[in-house]
Amino acid sequence: MKFNAEIEILPLKGLLDPQGKAVANGLPKIGIHTASNVRIGKFITLDIEAKSADEARVFCETACTKLLANLIMEGYIIRIKAI
Amino acid sequence: MKFNAEIEILPLKGLLDPQGKAVANGLPKIGIHTASNVRIGKFITLDIEAKSADEARVFCETACTKLLANLIMEGYIIRIKAI
Repeated sequence: MKFNAEIEILPLKGLLDPQGKAVANGLPKIGIHTASNVRIGKFITLDIEAKSADEARVFCETACTKLLANLIMEGYIIRIKAI
Repeated sequence: MKFNAEIEILPLKGLLDPQGKAVANGLPKIGIHTASNVRIGKFITLDIEAKSADEARVFCETACTKLLANLIMEGYIIRIKAI
């Protein structure tokens, strides 16, 4: 079966997020004054062939822990759907 | 009312995505041989004060078009939920 995976990777809460801070500082200049807690990370989407959604999730966990995310500084969320 | 917005920004389909290609080349080296169509973009989350979910979405559209996304090369998806 074929699955689509969406992976969100964000800096852990409480850690400095300079990119998020830069955007938070830029928003008032384009007229948005009510935004807070801006955090910026990576978004990854991929298709994966696997026997089950669980196996696809295990593949994505491996990809996150070994390649995509820095677990000291980042957390990740994986969403799997059949396609 | 306060809303949380999640924004996914990805390179448009058909455009070259060198970061995605690099990850696609790296996955077989960690034992994942069945992945394809890897695309990498940005993920942004923020809290925003607005009168309605529609107004919060308008704020986020403005942020995407004026600050966060390069519309020539990237597309975006906005999700709003009340918090």
